[in-house]
Amino acid sequence: MEIVYFNGKFLPSEEVKISPDDRGFLFADGIYEVVRWYEGGFFDMEGHQLRLKRSLREVRLDWPQADEFQLIARELIIRNSLQQKPSLVYIQVTRGVARRSHSFPSPAVSPTVYAFARGFSPDPDMIARGIKTIMKKDIRWSRCDIKSVSLLPNILSFQDAVEAGTLECIFERDGVITECAHSNVFIVRDGTLYTHPESENILSGISRRNVILLAKQSGIPVKEIAVAMKDLSLADEVFITNTSFEVAPVIAINNNPVADGNPGPVTLKLRTMFRNETMKIRKTSVQ
Amino acid sequence: MEIVYFNGKFLPSEEVKISPDDRGFLFADGIYEVVRWYEGGFFDMEGHQLRLKRSLREVRLDWPQADEFQLIARELIIRNSLQQKPSLVYIQVTRGVARRSHSFPSPAVSPTVYAFARGFSPDPDMIARGIKTIMKKDIRWSRCDIKSVSLLPNILSFQDAVEAGTLECIFERDGVITECAHSNVFIVRDGTLYTHPESENILSGISRRNVILLAKQSGIPVKEIAVAMKDLSLADEVFITNTSFEVAPVIAINNNPVADGNPGPVTLKLRTMFRNETMKIRKTSVQ
Repeated sequence: MEIVYFNGKFLPSEEVKISPDDRGFLFADGIYEVVRWYEGGFFDMEGHQLRLKRSLREVRLDWPQADEFQLIARELIIRNSLQQKPSLVYIQVTRGVARRSHSFPSPAVSPTVYAFARGFSPDPDMIARGIKTIMKKDIRWSRCDIKSVSLLPNILSFQDAVEAGTLECIFERDGVITECAHSNVFIVRDGTLYTHPESENILSGISRRNVILLAKQSGIPVKEIAVAMKDLSLADEVFITNTSFEVAPVIAINNNPVADGNPGPVTLKLRTMFRNETMKIRKTSVQ
Repeated sequence: MEIVYFNGKFLPSEEVKISPDDRGFLFADGIYEVVRWYEGGFFDMEGHQLRLKRSLREVRLDWPQADEFQLIARELIIRNSLQQKPSLVYIQVTRGVARRSHSFPSPAVSPTVYAFARGFSPDPDMIARGIKTIMKKDIRWSRCDIKSVSLLPNILSFQDAVEAGTLECIFERDGVITECAHSNVFIVRDGTLYTHPESENILSGISRRNVILLAKQSGIPVKEIAVAMKDLSLADEVFITNTSFEVAPVIAINNNPVADGNPGPVTLKLRTMFRNETMKIRKTSVQ
């Protein structure tokens, strides 16, 4: 039986029912966060915790217990016996339940907080061989830096990627590459790493930030500069980063191979470094 | 006791509970529609019905009973004894309940359909005196023609309008006026009506379309052309249209009066014509 967290309590998932007046349901008036459990510990929980609080602040949502996210997440892992399994913890906070009206409820109501932990089956060998992608026009809003549940644009774009037989879509806005439907994207050229700078047009990915740190540590130059769409064909390597895929080589875009169509050396080096970091979490927990 | 519609049934509202796995809650993966009841009939139900079906099509959501919306709406009015009260019927359709994953559920699941009718208290005298507004950068996505529940950008923008003591915010995108957080906007200059053409940047408002028809019928020239932000100060009149406000004069933008700060003659003429149309619904029902 799955145990989830709902408004301060741990309950069987079938007992959780959302009001149809929940502003998450009516208005997408909420934010979320996803953190990965590596058989013993969370990857960069501090980064996720900070981003959760930033998202809340940016949409002016007050959840006084936001600092408890890491405790809730750990409790969900334990209550669902996921300690030894690759897992993801998802948390969503909405502005709560109120009769439908665009303005914030006045007086304010308690936020709705829902979280679950679920095991998943990553396939690192498949990912290491590289993934195919498509390009899509970035139709999302102008505050992609907020991890909001207002995700319909991502859903529609990503579905096109799935139906094209690929695993991700890369967005282009105003002639430059921004990010993907649920990952950040990096381009390698002449040994230098390029990725869109933090801005309102991308989510500041936790994996993204860690990859940049690892690259700098190992002497790979990093330029946080938006890459023009027209320069994409000059890339030696392309890869994406997110919580589930970690570092995934992109071997094709719109059915065109990236360079020779194989994962490149910089990508694979960063993938190995990233995975070594996650191994440390596993080892620590065994001790 | 409020009776609502939920997945084929009419139930007391407190019996409706949404699954936390509903894609409306997790992803804003759904659309909605709002139609007004004028004490005896709906205003342009055909227009709302067509737009509902268009929204479903555009997000690739299959609700085979979409044609029954008008029957559901009427039944909600009756079951809630709203026949003689100004009311709004709201309907929302989401892609249904499925374990969280960005791609569409496969195989497809039944959509979630939720609708309610609620009386409201329009204040036509207040509206006729004109409303104040603020300008906001249009931060929404690029498919504002779809009436989706992915409304967080509208919510955040509208809240700023409320906190500025106004009733609506007018959006500017790339230097032109698009529409408002939940209405369309018209500008009158030298006797001609200007409004943003139908495009992916505005919702094709039912009131908007009816006002354009009424203007043409009464010989007022209408140009569906986007007005540049810099030309807004040249407006003789500004007004907005939506289902609740019908035609509302805008008398101030960002605390600056529009022209002399009073509702203009073209606006008031169209407001009267629009309200005469709605009177016909009331009269028809009395006969």
